[in-house]
Amino acid sequence: MTLRSYPRFITLEGSEGAGKSTVLAALREVLAGDARDTVVTREPGGTPLAEQIRGLLLDTHHEPPTTEAELLLVFAARAQHVRETILPALERGAWVISDRFTDASYAYQGAARGGDLDFIGELERRVVGIAPGMTLLLDVPVAIGLQRARGRGATDRIEAEREDFFERVREGYLARAKADPARFRVIDATQPADVVAAQAVAHLRDWIGANA
Amino acid sequence: MTLRSYPRFITLEGSEGAGKSTVLAALREVLAGDARDTVVTREPGGTPLAEQIRGLLLDTHHEPPTTEAELLLVFAARAQHVRETILPALERGAWVISDRFTDASYAYQGAARGGDLDFIGELERRVVGIAPGMTLLLDVPVAIGLQRARGRGATDRIEAEREDFFERVREGYLARAKADPARFRVIDATQPADVVAAQAVAHLRDWIGANA
Repeated sequence: MTLRSYPRFITLEGSEGAGKSTVLAALREVLAGDARDTVVTREPGGTPLAEQIRGLLLDTHHEPPTTEAELLLVFAARAQHVRETILPALERGAWVISDRFTDASYAYQGAARGGDLDFIGELERRVVGIAPGMTLLLDVPVAIGLQRARGRGATDRIEAEREDFFERVREGYLARAKADPARFRVIDATQPADVVAAQAVAHLRDWIGANA
Repeated sequence: MTLRSYPRFITLEGSEGAGKSTVLAALREVLAGDARDTVVTREPGGTPLAEQIRGLLLDTHHEPPTTEAELLLVFAARAQHVRETILPALERGAWVISDRFTDASYAYQGAARGGDLDFIGELERRVVGIAPGMTLLLDVPVAIGLQRARGRGATDRIEAEREDFFERVREGYLARAKADPARFRVIDATQPADVVAAQAVAHLRDWIGANA
């Protein structure tokens, strides 16, 4: 029941406005430039069913899920994503980059919503079973991140949370990184977007060099 | 972390074609006739969000959920149903009758799909937390039940399962009943629908007499 770690599985984490999209595009370009078989995916989502679950999670127009329902919906989507998208790709030798993965549940459903971390750990072992080899965490102070995210326009149910919620998300992520320094690369995302992307690319190149 | 049992919470269980709808209508009439505050609900479902999750579970047109995703979707819907519909009703003193509840997960996601019963038990303790005072189980041999259910026309994703799946559902339910005889009333649902309904009503009247 321990997690199996896949070197070619890389995750990108960070809260709202950390600049994940720019980094994701840069990482994709590196792998495409090397002509590596690559799957870029996201959570919640990454399969048609999991994307429908994402819709239920982010919709602001219906009844919001309770803390427990949100946690189980996120892990239902993740179970589907692992089985239908991530594992088939890893098993054929592809590289997989996911915009968010289980660390996000420790940060959002755990640290920020107050969900039980032991229970999250049990869900991770029971229905996820795998871990990324490397995780890039884009860290940015909440005020800066929210200003960027809200500048983009319409907000979903999570983005509409209060500032103290995102403070707990950030602390949750940093605690995860501190507990597993061998897996995490923390990048200061207050830097200009091209600098952040260049640092992420350097981490990826180092990682490929060590694991190709 | 033990379950809290509510005497005014009654569940109706049974697999496809057992005749739950007729019984449900008869039970509702008894409680309405007594002018008791009553909520009749169902699973998966019972809140707008939980009904949307039901749609994902029963739809035959998209990617089917994996065993783990199905289990977590069912419990996500149940967590929402308990918090938003069942508990508020019980706390104001209403009677609640639910067409299926956690026993169905032991039968369908556990016995029939091979899900881990310990994990189901943990989900029950962690995100459900409550149990019905009385459960009516309509028991019918699979061949008879399926003939009735399929006579109704279009089948959903669960109804389209093979006969051995429903044999395991039936065995799963009977094992639950055997393990908790104080809570379960097993009714032979091969009898005519009016006889089945009359027996269910008699159990309800006895129960009201003992718990009103």
